[in-house]
Amino acid sequence: MRIRNQTTGARLRIVLEPDIALGPGKADLLEGIDSTGSIAAAGRDLGMSYKRAWGLVEEMNADFGQPLVHTTKGGRNFGGAGLTPVGQQVLTLYRRMEERAGEAIQGEMKALRKLRTAIAK
Amino acid sequence: MRIRNQTTGARLRIVLEPDIALGPGKADLLEGIDSTGSIAAAGRDLGMSYKRAWGLVEEMNADFGQPLVHTTKGGRNFGGAGLTPVGQQVLTLYRRMEERAGEAIQGEMKALRKLRTAIAK
Repeated sequence: MRIRNQTTGARLRIVLEPDIALGPGKADLLEGIDSTGSIAAAGRDLGMSYKRAWGLVEEMNADFGQPLVHTTKGGRNFGGAGLTPVGQQVLTLYRRMEERAGEAIQGEMKALRKLRTAIAK
Repeated sequence: MRIRNQTTGARLRIVLEPDIALGPGKADLLEGIDSTGSIAAAGRDLGMSYKRAWGLVEEMNADFGQPLVHTTKGGRNFGGAGLTPVGQQVLTLYRRMEERAGEAIQGEMKALRKLRTAIAK
């Protein structure tokens, strides 16, 4: 699991429409739900309260007009959650964007680091 | 002046070292200081308190090991502020990164929007 401002590189926040944004927090939450099968566990791993994690899931589901995360009530997977096909697509697209953006700015990243180290060390 | 989550597109947060990050808030502040010649005025335009704006400036100056922002005390420009050459370079590099990243992710951006509109509208 990534920790904000600890992993060096580019972090991307995508603003699709005014007030409709997708950033590292939501992406990490989707990834966590996919790997743990639980909204609560995914949130916990990211240091989010249960309320916060659920709030973000509801926000994403509303923003995309259909669930990115499905939950199962009762049965063997009581309380379980997972990504819908759309949720998977959103996560995949976001990770690809992160990767492409990271590649595109390597030169400037190097220049920025040089600027720092030339002075600071 | 940009307003967070209102301007659509990619917003970039660059983590240079653990806990040393440069994002839209700091970049907008640098730009505002450059155009207004004042930390207080730049902060105000961004809805930041004077304390917050100063805190970010001090953080950036420390992060880069030399001032990105210079301040003048007394004289005709009493209380004035501006970017140092390094500050200008940092702002230019950041804006170029935003541009390059935005270009690099156009395809995914389109796919993400289509995913939304296909469902939501």
